[in-house]
Amino acid sequence: MKGISTIAFSGGVGGAKLALGLARVLPPEELLIVANTADDFDHLGLHICPDLDTITYTLCGRANRSQGWGIEGETWNCLQALSELGGPDWFRLGDRDVATHLYRTQRLREGARLSEVTAEICLALGIGQRLIPVSDDPVRTIVHTAGGDLPFQDYFVRQRCEPRVTGFRFDGADRAAINPELHAALSSPDLSAVIFCPSNPFVSIAPMLAIPGMQEALLAARAPIVAVSPIVGGTAVKGPAAKMMSELGLPITPLAVAKRYSDLATAFIVDVVDGDQVARVRELGLACEAMPTLMNNDDDKLRLASSVIDYCHALSR
Amino acid sequence: MKGISTIAFSGGVGGAKLALGLARVLPPEELLIVANTADDFDHLGLHICPDLDTITYTLCGRANRSQGWGIEGETWNCLQALSELGGPDWFRLGDRDVATHLYRTQRLREGARLSEVTAEICLALGIGQRLIPVSDDPVRTIVHTAGGDLPFQDYFVRQRCEPRVTGFRFDGADRAAINPELHAALSSPDLSAVIFCPSNPFVSIAPMLAIPGMQEALLAARAPIVAVSPIVGGTAVKGPAAKMMSELGLPITPLAVAKRYSDLATAFIVDVVDGDQVARVRELGLACEAMPTLMNNDDDKLRLASSVIDYCHALSR
Repeated sequence: MKGISTIAFSGGVGGAKLALGLARVLPPEELLIVANTADDFDHLGLHICPDLDTITYTLCGRANRSQGWGIEGETWNCLQALSELGGPDWFRLGDRDVATHLYRTQRLREGARLSEVTAEICLALGIGQRLIPVSDDPVRTIVHTAGGDLPFQDYFVRQRCEPRVTGFRFDGADRAAINPELHAALSSPDLSAVIFCPSNPFVSIAPMLAIPGMQEALLAARAPIVAVSPIVGGTAVKGPAAKMMSELGLPITPLAVAKRYSDLATAFIVDVVDGDQVARVRELGLACEAMPTLMNNDDDKLRLASSVIDYCHALSR
Repeated sequence: MKGISTIAFSGGVGGAKLALGLARVLPPEELLIVANTADDFDHLGLHICPDLDTITYTLCGRANRSQGWGIEGETWNCLQALSELGGPDWFRLGDRDVATHLYRTQRLREGARLSEVTAEICLALGIGQRLIPVSDDPVRTIVHTAGGDLPFQDYFVRQRCEPRVTGFRFDGADRAAINPELHAALSSPDLSAVIFCPSNPFVSIAPMLAIPGMQEALLAARAPIVAVSPIVGGTAVKGPAAKMMSELGLPITPLAVAKRYSDLATAFIVDVVDGDQVARVRELGLACEAMPTLMNNDDDKLRLASSVIDYCHALSR
């Protein structure tokens, strides 16, 4: 059996869309999806992994497509009752979603690694692809804001990304170990593509790259590393990336994202509306192509996945 | 303001019915409902208090009347999702019920006492009566069975009371302290009635009586102690009491229950169908009356509550 040919690093919603496309294009045993865990947090004693869960629900076809997170047809009776009790209701826990958190938390308490629990959940939900946390060790994004440091979910959900961002840190990253399965795949001769999904560069991709040895392992991989721009037409397709760039004094352009990856990546993909950026990205020393990157439906996801893989293969020739 | 006039010791369903009747009859500030906690258990990291919750849901009018536990109109989406994940689904956690457990568990983790958390839940749900756990310290019923020792919920829910019972023990009871509010009420000059609700004598009332100093405090109280028989017409109105009595070699009669309370109680109430037991109970040295004790509707609960209180007042004259 062939080993992993494609590794996709992903945050939540946008990344999960491309991950789904890749899952439709590749044989299941060839795809390794690596999820950011720096959004994870403990809430009401539940260990919640928003990115892993978004990818999981997306891959098994249960994701709520209109809101971009959670489960289609979800109910909210637990949250409503919690609210009536005066409990914290700022993080919207759906009834079915709670089951995922209860299951995961209990298994972790029993001593299972997050990787093991994720594999169990994927198996139970009929997901044939390998989905793993980037590390089994806790890494937590802390958002530096004008009003002080905020744990990521406090910033993202409770404060709706309103505080002005001045920087980030990734608590625990310096003590985290790369998931051994990722390490093995990165050093495998079967590997032909490493993809950074169109995820937030600051809080989805950066915390994964902050794990000691990660950049070295990526540079040592014998496959092109291709990043897909999450910035399209001067804004983020989803989430706070554009607002963060603005607050950090960066232009809201694919080029500004590409600069962050220029020491690491082989190539950068911009959307067709940003064709003017291609030449400037190439000046960074990166290969660059423009292609349609918006994924409004499953056909879009499949098409982008195919295009990205074809591009990786072309780059490695 | 007058202090507590009436203390009701209660387990789950049957006890909660009389507690509701008492709540309808007495001014809220005069009633103290004391719940058994020896059924409590930790499940999926949630601290679950079945008797407290049954009484809570009953008092606030949310109890599911047909099944005798849980919440009316409850949904089961979390449990179904948990089952799909291969998580433990033998204990039926409703979506709204999960909120109670999440809230309680979080508050306990924050350092609150179970009494405090119970008061918070009662306040949030509009319950004006005082409902307290018999102790803030853990007491856990272990059921001795022909097949070995079983934690109570394993016996009661997972194994549906099927194992043959040979005895009980109450882990932690010897180190538990009587709830200070109960201790104060028992020694108050305002107290005029102590009621043992028609709850299981082995696993609802006995663990409360096993707490050091409880029997002494009851005997020192200046109010009659009146127990209502949970055995009516040769069977238990609800739950495994009759099966337990049979397996323990006891006759399934009110008299056999009365004998367990004969050193402690002032009086014993049997149902009208057990009028033949009155003389035999009186031979134990207990006062005894027969009255209608079945509580099929709210009128029944109110009527029994009134009758029991009137009887207590008659006894103390």
